Amino acid sequence: MSIKLKILGCHSATPRVNAHPTSQYLEINNRHFLIDCGEGTQRQMRKYKVGFSKINHIFISHLHGDHFFGLIGLLSTYGILNREKDLHVYGPVGIKEITELQLKLSMSHVRYRIVFHELSSKKSELIFEDDKVAVYTIPLRHRVYTNGFLFKEKPKPRNLHLDNIKQYDEIETCDYYNIKAGKDFILSTGEIVPNEELTTDPVRPKSYAFCSDTMFKPDIVPIIEGVDILYHEATFLKELEHLCEKTKHSTAEQAAIIAKDANVGLLILGHYSSRYSDIECFKEEAQTVFENVALARVGETFTCNASLQLQV
Amino acid sequence: MSIKLKILGCHSATPRVNAHPTSQYLEINNRHFLIDCGEGTQRQMRKYKVGFSKINHIFISHLHGDHFFGLIGLLSTYGILNREKDLHVYGPVGIKEITELQLKLSMSHVRYRIVFHELSSKKSELIFEDDKVAVYTIPLRHRVYTNGFLFKEKPKPRNLHLDNIKQYDEIETCDYYNIKAGKDFILSTGEIVPNEELTTDPVRPKSYAFCSDTMFKPDIVPIIEGVDILYHEATFLKELEHLCEKTKHSTAEQAAIIAKDANVGLLILGHYSSRYSDIECFKEEAQTVFENVALARVGETFTCNASLQLQV
Repeated sequence: MSIKLKILGCHSATPRVNAHPTSQYLEINNRHFLIDCGEGTQRQMRKYKVGFSKINHIFISHLHGDHFFGLIGLLSTYGILNREKDLHVYGPVGIKEITELQLKLSMSHVRYRIVFHELSSKKSELIFEDDKVAVYTIPLRHRVYTNGFLFKEKPKPRNLHLDNIKQYDEIETCDYYNIKAGKDFILSTGEIVPNEELTTDPVRPKSYAFCSDTMFKPDIVPIIEGVDILYHEATFLKELEHLCEKTKHSTAEQAAIIAKDANVGLLILGHYSSRYSDIECFKEEAQTVFENVALARVGETFTCNASLQLQV
Repeated sequence: MSIKLKILGCHSATPRVNAHPTSQYLEINNRHFLIDCGEGTQRQMRKYKVGFSKINHIFISHLHGDHFFGLIGLLSTYGILNREKDLHVYGPVGIKEITELQLKLSMSHVRYRIVFHELSSKKSELIFEDDKVAVYTIPLRHRVYTNGFLFKEKPKPRNLHLDNIKQYDEIETCDYYNIKAGKDFILSTGEIVPNEELTTDPVRPKSYAFCSDTMFKPDIVPIIEGVDILYHEATFLKELEHLCEKTKHSTAEQAAIIAKDANVGLLILGHYSSRYSDIECFKEEAQTVFENVALARVGETFTCNASLQLQV
């Protein structure tokens, strides 16, 4: 599975009995990330069987409580669980000071190292990269400094066209690495076998964009262009669009406009205001603009496999 | 009802799906208090229908996460709910700095005033008093600076013995206040009618002592002598008593010894280690020392009415 996204919480503002603040567990190309960490996230992780030890990177969009107040509890629990591996935390400036002060006051001497990556840029930047995945910020516009995050699989090697390769006795297994990397093959006669003859296109790398919280911000479109899955907040319906300016949130319609303009595969809505008891209306509103819309619901998993099939 | 104690959480260490860290809602003589505030407390308050607006005083025993990490979320929610009344928070030195830093970073401009009462004394002290209730600290011994809290009803006025009073035409309704306060009545002849003839003893004031977290500390006995209800932590059974020294916790037996020596009405145990899936054994162990033992369970309410009846 290229992408597996588990919704641990998708409601705005205060935790309630059946409404959990934002947190998501993302598995992409065998990397495991936690995105936002509202109060109660560690309990949700246990409930939905997210392996604590798998996570080495936590991304915090902004320091409002419904995206952040569960972080200190999770970090503290890692200490109790005797974690030893480094844990990387990405979030706005201040996240280091607040976390370290809490750990100091509770005298929680965690044995593992917390590596803070404090963010302050207003431009999209690469903040994580390994051989499998790259993560970029998506500058958003909210009441406090906020970033979304774009998770992109690294391009995969080309697929070997073995039937064609076998036509050439000179090509050995040890040559496959270069061929998969796109190189032509030069025969002993000097003749060049073009790479296109020896390989087929690899699966297109998958990508996921997380955008919460933000008011309508069309200039993010070039950053998230063509992502397979976009999560975009939709706190209000259009009828309450006047509240978006004050609270710096979006409507379902605005989220759909972003999805359409960025030509994404699937739009997932979330961060619903507590005033809405039935959230189906968010989907209906968004679908007037963009067809492929799903609603985030706590406990739900969205997957996107190698052949580009989206499953909800 | 003189005392109504609702258990919102009673487990140690990390929150789990069916294990909630410490928090209690106490109603005593029409005053409403929150004691400790582990992560998820505000959700538990909603689940068990504790009115947010009733609470004006929150007591935090110590700054370990399982007693404290839910506080910032609750304070933030009060802001979202547009609270305007002062809120008093009692807890160890540092609680003000950490709370204000979090509110600043999240730019949560709460409209109400948070009045911090930072504690540092190692002796029992009066920290709250009005006409109905007084609250004292109970110095405990744990890995960090920790207090329990003793909640005492103020003595009630004496009960009028109306049959006797009616024998004296001179005694008017306006005299009742002084008679209920224990004063004798002087007739116009100069004859003194002793108060004992005009009144009966009032109901004995009720009291509740909360003691978590602590290792066995017999010097708290004089402070909590004769309380109606004692909540005392029991993290381990006797078989793991050797862990108590390192972790600064108590066994069920030790809690029962405190209860017996202090001659309390009811002992409630809690703060069970996660290693015990069945908690009945805590009750059994305690009852080898002290008869009247109950187990704290999430969502349970203990009451103690005016006639001293305890209900579980």
